[in-house]
Amino acid sequence: MTVERVLPTAEAHDLIDLVRDLVGKEVAPRAAADEATGRFPREVFTTLGRAGLLGLPYPEEHGGAAQPYEVYLQVIEELAAGWLAVGLGLSVHTLSCFPIAAYGTDAQRAELLPEMLGGELLGAYCLSEPHSGSDAAALTTRAARDADGYTVDGVKAWITHGGAADFYTLMARTSPDGARGISCFHVPAGTPGLSFGEPERKMGMKSSPTAQVRFDAARLGPDALVGSEGEGFRIAMAALDGGRLGIAACAVGVAQAAFDAAASYARERRQFGSRIADFQGIGFMLADMATGIAAARALYLDAARLRDTGRPYGTQAAMAKLFATDMCMKVTTDAVQVLGGYGYVEDFPVERYMREAKVLQIVEGTNQVQRLVISRAVAKG
Amino acid sequence: MTVERVLPTAEAHDLIDLVRDLVGKEVAPRAAADEATGRFPREVFTTLGRAGLLGLPYPEEHGGAAQPYEVYLQVIEELAAGWLAVGLGLSVHTLSCFPIAAYGTDAQRAELLPEMLGGELLGAYCLSEPHSGSDAAALTTRAARDADGYTVDGVKAWITHGGAADFYTLMARTSPDGARGISCFHVPAGTPGLSFGEPERKMGMKSSPTAQVRFDAARLGPDALVGSEGEGFRIAMAALDGGRLGIAACAVGVAQAAFDAAASYARERRQFGSRIADFQGIGFMLADMATGIAAARALYLDAARLRDTGRPYGTQAAMAKLFATDMCMKVTTDAVQVLGGYGYVEDFPVERYMREAKVLQIVEGTNQVQRLVISRAVAKG
Amino acid sequence: MTVERVLPTAEAHDLIDLVRDLVGKEVAPRAAADEATGRFPREVFTTLGRAGLLGLPYPEEHGGAAQPYEVYLQVIEELAAGWLAVGLGLSVHTLSCFPIAAYGTDAQRAELLPEMLGGELLGAYCLSEPHSGSDAAALTTRAARDADGYTVDGVKAWITHGGAADFYTLMARTSPDGARGISCFHVPAGTPGLSFGEPERKMGMKSSPTAQVRFDAARLGPDALVGSEGEGFRIAMAALDGGRLGIAACAVGVAQAAFDAAASYARERRQFGSRIADFQGIGFMLADMATGIAAARALYLDAARLRDTGRPYGTQAAMAKLFATDMCMKVTTDAVQVLGGYGYVEDFPVERYMREAKVLQIVEGTNQVQRLVISRAVAKG
Amino acid sequence: MTVERVLPTAEAHDLIDLVRDLVGKEVAPRAAADEATGRFPREVFTTLGRAGLLGLPYPEEHGGAAQPYEVYLQVIEELAAGWLAVGLGLSVHTLSCFPIAAYGTDAQRAELLPEMLGGELLGAYCLSEPHSGSDAAALTTRAARDADGYTVDGVKAWITHGGAADFYTLMARTSPDGARGISCFHVPAGTPGLSFGEPERKMGMKSSPTAQVRFDAARLGPDALVGSEGEGFRIAMAALDGGRLGIAACAVGVAQAAFDAAASYARERRQFGSRIADFQGIGFMLADMATGIAAARALYLDAARLRDTGRPYGTQAAMAKLFATDMCMKVTTDAVQVLGGYGYVEDFPVERYMREAKVLQIVEGTNQVQRLVISRAVAKG
Repeated sequence: MTVERVLPTAEAHDLIDLVRDLVGKEVAPRAAADEATGRFPREVFTTLGRAGLLGLPYPEEHGGAAQPYEVYLQVIEELAAGWLAVGLGLSVHTLSCFPIAAYGTDAQRAELLPEMLGGELLGAYCLSEPHSGSDAAALTTRAARDADGYTVDGVKAWITHGGAADFYTLMARTSPDGARGISCFHVPAGTPGLSFGEPERKMGMKSSPTAQVRFDAARLGPDALVGSEGEGFRIAMAALDGGRLGIAACAVGVAQAAFDAAASYARERRQFGSRIADFQGIGFMLADMATGIAAARALYLDAARLRDTGRPYGTQAAMAKLFATDMCMKVTTDAVQVLGGYGYVEDFPVERYMREAKVLQIVEGTNQVQRLVISRAVAKG
Repeated sequence: MTVERVLPTAEAHDLIDLVRDLVGKEVAPRAAADEATGRFPREVFTTLGRAGLLGLPYPEEHGGAAQPYEVYLQVIEELAAGWLAVGLGLSVHTLSCFPIAAYGTDAQRAELLPEMLGGELLGAYCLSEPHSGSDAAALTTRAARDADGYTVDGVKAWITHGGAADFYTLMARTSPDGARGISCFHVPAGTPGLSFGEPERKMGMKSSPTAQVRFDAARLGPDALVGSEGEGFRIAMAALDGGRLGIAACAVGVAQAAFDAAASYARERRQFGSRIADFQGIGFMLADMATGIAAARALYLDAARLRDTGRPYGTQAAMAKLFATDMCMKVTTDAVQVLGGYGYVEDFPVERYMREAKVLQIVEGTNQVQRLVISRAVAKG
Repeated sequence: MTVERVLPTAEAHDLIDLVRDLVGKEVAPRAAADEATGRFPREVFTTLGRAGLLGLPYPEEHGGAAQPYEVYLQVIEELAAGWLAVGLGLSVHTLSCFPIAAYGTDAQRAELLPEMLGGELLGAYCLSEPHSGSDAAALTTRAARDADGYTVDGVKAWITHGGAADFYTLMARTSPDGARGISCFHVPAGTPGLSFGEPERKMGMKSSPTAQVRFDAARLGPDALVGSEGEGFRIAMAALDGGRLGIAACAVGVAQAAFDAAASYARERRQFGSRIADFQGIGFMLADMATGIAAARALYLDAARLRDTGRPYGTQAAMAKLFATDMCMKVTTDAVQVLGGYGYVEDFPVERYMREAKVLQIVEGTNQVQRLVISRAVAKG
Repeated sequence: MTVERVLPTAEAHDLIDLVRDLVGKEVAPRAAADEATGRFPREVFTTLGRAGLLGLPYPEEHGGAAQPYEVYLQVIEELAAGWLAVGLGLSVHTLSCFPIAAYGTDAQRAELLPEMLGGELLGAYCLSEPHSGSDAAALTTRAARDADGYTVDGVKAWITHGGAADFYTLMARTSPDGARGISCFHVPAGTPGLSFGEPERKMGMKSSPTAQVRFDAARLGPDALVGSEGEGFRIAMAALDGGRLGIAACAVGVAQAAFDAAASYARERRQFGSRIADFQGIGFMLADMATGIAAARALYLDAARLRDTGRPYGTQAAMAKLFATDMCMKVTTDAVQVLGGYGYVEDFPVERYMREAKVLQIVEGTNQVQRLVISRAVAKG
């Protein structure tokens, strides 16, 4: 069943059609091979950039498409349904562009955004550290100011596109003053003193490199600073709200792909003389899966529309991330179940969806962190 | 936390404000007393009618307010949060008006709708029978045609407003031909041969009478027929789609009321030296409750917007009913848990919300029937 | 389906047979009426006492039956399946006897236990207070020592059998020293200065009075002390471990009763031409219910056997209470669902089981407190 | 935390100690490497055989250890906690020996059992086919009788140890008469006409080969028949009951290993200034995991004791398989969550446990088949 999308404009419908076409031709067919070998499909991002898909929510003057989040996220969802490494990669890239786009100087924007949004420069987002995952304000990577700029020392961990990106959006400490001592920097890939760990050997998303990003007396010029000194944590938090919606959209995409595969199998496979889709034991499971997906999609779109109309949406974004990724974990696990043994082998993509789902409960704030964010809003009343 | 509603017009915002005011002054304060004694608050429906709230989704020419379902349902939600018997009563009344409004002759509409939508005539909807609950097409109440009209014999069961309504929208069999042998009738309260069972002694919703409606050679004139003979099942199914959204909205309202009570208690109650809302054990539970409510609301509004834009929405309505009522059962049960002993006693309304929640998983098609509806759509592909 | 019990002795089988007979004749048939009117069935406890069922786990020298917990708990389960007020009442009574039986002097035991275990003296257990529920060590009821005994001031809340019991096992503060300042007392019903609040109006268990127990300069003699001064918290905690197993057994009993009613209905009720038990939508739900019940029973019996063989069982008891009561809430809610409208009305006992289930998640430590107990054991490693 | 096992004899305690020692030295340390390369650790089974662990529930006269199922299953659990491929491999081997042990002639037993139980001959169990998974009675592999024995044609699918086993216990059709036309055969590895598909590329259990087993005019002598002609389905079903308990034990072992890893991590890892085990958000999750494991273990042991005392245990075995494997899926998924990013990478075994868990919901009858088995028992009443 093709998902019937509710979209605000005819242009958005055309955009989704373009994306579906591109996913069918350029994205989905490569997924299995690259996931098997762990090759990063850098060229797919170039293709996306040329198709105008890397700058969807950003202003047109710098090469963006000025699309509402409501539309941008459904593009993410379609890409993630084809290949999570691509959908999530786009979300991370969009996140990495956000500080320059929202807090950068005119000069920074003019210089950097066109190539960022056009596919020439792929981004990575460096916030987590080995000892500060959920507790971002405790990060210790230091950017020491001197006359000519900054010297950066420290290690960032779990960085998507680490070693493969063209630029690194970095949160580092410019003063010991807790959350208020953090600043944001733009770090090009060739920066001296910048190096990378071995890619992590992950359960899924094997084509998307995740690695430590190491700063060993790395030198940044004074114009590497994005926003003001001390503004980094605020930037990071603002970026995260949007990033969480990106993850929610990825989760819905992966779940939809898993559901489609399971429903299709259940309509073909026969046991005890009937299609297994016609047994309530399987049919009701499929009904619950479809319902969870529909609810998660409605929820992230609701949060997106809040953002698009300029209203606070942080709590709603945390809810969307939490709900969509928990749903995705359950739906993909059940999709494997519908296929039985066929679900457990690599001949079908369903086992891949289940391995991919798990990472979504962890990234951009674990689901425990989302519950913390939501419960604080509740406790405030 | 007052729910921030996304509404399509300023008029709709005013409407919601009016409803909230009315709920606070006329609805919620009476709930506990009437639920304790089982008194039906007929006068509240008169008040709603005078305020223009009984015909929200119907055309203005017959006294309706021509509001989109998206708005109508949020009114239901607000009423149900104050008192389920009223919110659900409005949903049932709206359902009972639907056949005349959508399939009635001009004469029927002109004669009946103004009083139906104005609060003078309260409706009941007679579909279920003792032996055909989920399997509506198997109903056996018979309407035998003769020269002057119809003679009706049979028993309808589980009828909300049974014995208290001013008119009964009846589905009865005019031929033995299964689903195609069912026709729809308008039956005024005073019809000879019409009588009522004792109100059921229910776990909750005690102020809202539920009773058998019995037809013993009841005489209907020829103009009692709504639509054509044999069209009844189709009318009933069309009515049900909207009715299911009404139940979904009720479920979100009850869950929101329970959540508000629990969150408020958790912000006040202290144990081990802290507000219990600040313990993750309670805080994360509240976060999950808030998330479930937000997802259910987004889902039913999504279905409502499909209906409002003329698209198929039956599967989405079944999903919304299923998801919202399962969520409501869980959220109200957890709300009692947050209050502990205080949740289990009648001094707080929370135990009432939990008793009310259960009926929502059963009415307008049990949640098993919803899964059947959804799984059939999936199986069709 | 009669539950096939695994029991250690032929004597235990005879005991269970006796209990089943007694439940069928003296307990279950009275439940509906007394629950409707809120009458406390004191005489049933006398009957239980005469049948030797009030002192099952206590030594024979004082009138007990020296049965292992494994057997005692299955008796509780059978009683609770017939009427929770009786099963839970027996568990509370047994808890109230525990301090005297385990920590009392020979004189206290000789004087009090025979009537306690014989049905003449029914007990209540006074630990919770309005402001210290989960945080028992924060209790403020004070027992001030003087030459002739103690003067007690304070209020106990949520006391089962409050106002109906013949003796009250009281935890009160004899020094300000936190948990170590609490002592245990035996308080006969006629004690001057002892009074009771109105019975709480509860969602279920309406025949079992729950009330505040108030101490207003109540006078106790020096021999009212059970164990040493300051030993009360330790006694309370030891008592609670056993009490939690009692609640677990109650939960399994109520769930079994609900399951039996649902399964029986599903074998009779026909829709769409088949017994609803034969639809996987209902059949799989019944399978999950049966499985949850079997797991909960196995878990509490496992904990009981640890206790019976003298091994630590506190964590296992907390697990059994948590698991069994969460299961009972789910199973009873689903049992109502299986019966549909018939489940929601008082003509069948199923709605009562659901109302009863909820209290079990709250008493003897809310399920949040159980998780706290278990998580502390895990955190200790 | 070492699991405190309840065991019937001192001998059984010694056996468990032996197994733990062997798991720590010979099993667990090899798991990661062989799972990475997909090498089958045939030599570990030889070691188990020499240690007397391959014939635990079988009579001593043929080299078994005459242990009750209650003990045998806890050995499986310990092995599976170290390496599922070994624990599950032992369960499958035991299943494969069952027909000869229970239905074989004296000659068959004397000839084959000693080497089967001693580690020389590893077994595989050939029941499923590409088009008959859940519906075993529909199998089509044909064994045509002639003067000298049988000619077998057909394909068996999803066969654990397929291509690596020394003998294959085969269910094949000797007459078209549905379930009653199936017979059981013993097929040695070198049988002409026997060949194997490529090992399936599975999500987990990569060291344990799963492959099609193909019979192309394979010749069996008349003494290859186990039991009577037509008795195969009955043998298969009897074998499955025991096999299901083996899977339940495997599930508890894997879950325990995942829990131990998660709890250990949570006691070390610090965020926001505390051990994460001390946050209720993580602590309560660990409490629920521990509780689920304890309940599943109690449930499978309960079923085992029914078997050990000669009582019917098929329904209970289905419950144990269903509950334990659903629990294992949840616990291993949550264990990854506790470790966050560290849970998602191969440096820790936790992601492996999650991949392993999934297969357990599928093998020896999917959990949908278990629900079918249980619901039929319920429907029978």
